Amino acid sequence: MQNYLSDKAAGLKPYTAGEQPKAKNIIKLNTNENPYPPSPKTLDAYHHFDASNLRLYPRPDGGELRNTIAKIYDVPASCVFCGNGSDEILGFAFAAFFDGDVMFPDITYSFYPVWAALFGITYSTLALRDDFTIPVDRLCAKGIVLANPNAPTGIAIGQGDIEDVLMRNRDSVVIVDEAYAAFGAQSAACLVPEYPNLVVVNTLSKSHALAGMRIGYALAQPHLIDGLMRIKNSFNSYPLDAVAQCVGSAALMDSDYYTDVAKKIAATRDRVAAQLKILGFTVLPSCANFLFVTKQGMSAAALKNHLELGDIYVRHWDNPRISEFLRISIGTDRQMDTLIQKIKGFPG
Amino acid sequence: MQNYLSDKAAGLKPYTAGEQPKAKNIIKLNTNENPYPPSPKTLDAYHHFDASNLRLYPRPDGGELRNTIAKIYDVPASCVFCGNGSDEILGFAFAAFFDGDVMFPDITYSFYPVWAALFGITYSTLALRDDFTIPVDRLCAKGIVLANPNAPTGIAIGQGDIEDVLMRNRDSVVIVDEAYAAFGAQSAACLVPEYPNLVVVNTLSKSHALAGMRIGYALAQPHLIDGLMRIKNSFNSYPLDAVAQCVGSAALMDSDYYTDVAKKIAATRDRVAAQLKILGFTVLPSCANFLFVTKQGMSAAALKNHLELGDIYVRHWDNPRISEFLRISIGTDRQMDTLIQKIKGFPG
Repeated sequence: MQNYLSDKAAGLKPYTAGEQPKAKNIIKLNTNENPYPPSPKTLDAYHHFDASNLRLYPRPDGGELRNTIAKIYDVPASCVFCGNGSDEILGFAFAAFFDGDVMFPDITYSFYPVWAALFGITYSTLALRDDFTIPVDRLCAKGIVLANPNAPTGIAIGQGDIEDVLMRNRDSVVIVDEAYAAFGAQSAACLVPEYPNLVVVNTLSKSHALAGMRIGYALAQPHLIDGLMRIKNSFNSYPLDAVAQCVGSAALMDSDYYTDVAKKIAATRDRVAAQLKILGFTVLPSCANFLFVTKQGMSAAALKNHLELGDIYVRHWDNPRISEFLRISIGTDRQMDTLIQKIKGFPG
Repeated sequence: MQNYLSDKAAGLKPYTAGEQPKAKNIIKLNTNENPYPPSPKTLDAYHHFDASNLRLYPRPDGGELRNTIAKIYDVPASCVFCGNGSDEILGFAFAAFFDGDVMFPDITYSFYPVWAALFGITYSTLALRDDFTIPVDRLCAKGIVLANPNAPTGIAIGQGDIEDVLMRNRDSVVIVDEAYAAFGAQSAACLVPEYPNLVVVNTLSKSHALAGMRIGYALAQPHLIDGLMRIKNSFNSYPLDAVAQCVGSAALMDSDYYTDVAKKIAATRDRVAAQLKILGFTVLPSCANFLFVTKQGMSAAALKNHLELGDIYVRHWDNPRISEFLRISIGTDRQMDTLIQKIKGFPG
């Protein structure tokens, strides 16, 4: 039978998200979800939303959510873009800002090369050092994408390094993907007023326990936000539904709760990192809500399978340089204690 | 200052959606929203959804919504694709199936040429006849897109015409956009098992009063659904949030309510069409939840402005062939009575 697919579709290698197992009593440490629920005030916003109004289209620009983000970051709403998760925004950004010659690390969020391919944008990768840090001074291209903290390593870079990249690449758009910044990295959002080439992208999926609601945002100067709008309005006028706009806004306003949750997760992370080191693991210094770990002489794939038999899901990539690592999302203290017990029981 | 936009972004002419005025007491007949709220059972599903689970990612394929659609249309789930409104799905479909040589009518949904431009796909337009019907026998290209009923005309074609297009273009993918089909057109969904080149796209925005929730779906044979999945998974793994999956599924299962609503809207439409004809308007024969009308010697733009001063919003395009037409969404009977009164008061 005829294939019917476009050359583009036939040639793509789509991104593979972490598995979403349907079983109920598993410990799910494979997609960096927040182990704690959204705040009571966030849930109140959900329950007080007037669902009969769903017959109307949502605000195409994010409405109250956009205004809330602008207030929190003390920028005009024209510096804020709202989208269906940070993934959608990053996809839009590739189309909006890059014609080719994009650079990102060789080990980073594996969706970056997929967006480049989708929009036919050439890219190169910069090899991380042996310790998985980014040789920041070698970032030089017509477009640059950095996850901070980086994924799946969890290693963060400082604001000075970001500024260095911005200044050395003044004619290039630099995207800083801060999906995990709330767990320990310094945000570059404060640099937006100063740098006309900076786009900071964030998501409520992790820090605000709203992965199921699909809410992301970008901060940048208005000429760059306009670029994102041009792509959005050439693709889908209303990517963010009315419930997401309402609930996301309530979540962002309840910052005390989510700051506490992030601190609790960071404390669990540091405790588990110490325990894993005692067990002989190498644990990269994580500023995120996950750990990237390896152990000399132990097969990462085998450990992953062992954990899965015990209903614990973690993430493994059979990719160069990282095939002997596992990425472990930080769950509750009790979940992590179970994980440590299962790892101790691994004969490999 | 440097522009920073990609050539693609700089060259796009984005789609312009109907205005979303913020004022409360307006009569909004400009974006084809349903004037009636979602059904009580749909609202129940919203309120019984466990929002604390929003910390988890939604099912990437639409989950229970996908299964419900499969059940309703009596096809396997592998024949169903769920997306963030039918706009997102149509955008994906352009990327998934077309390399170039796409054809659609000259007067139709004005997003089609925008998606073609976004993905760099060449297209041609087929001129509608003077009576705004589609010369179906002249549809011949490597890709074909048809809205049925067509927008903004409201004119539908029959299943025989769709089959004719499918048979004469067996090597081409034919997309039938049925956003408004529930109000009076025959769906081509039943042809999916027979035609390996057919994609039927639908939305819950209009017929199911869920524009604010962003839910669309496509029906096609699995090899075409796979093409849509390839694009989705190269762009945004989870475009449909968990609430939308739950609420959309409940709405589709409550078909009695929505069938009644569609009948009520069609009855209002036919009554208003008759009244407008008495007032001297030409009213195209609509099978949708809107009317496309013109009156000899009357400026459509002037009537639009007159109505807006009376807080009634309708849609006008300053485009060739249709600049003297207005598209009027069907509201409640009371709203439409107010509209008729305001039109009677127009001096133009």
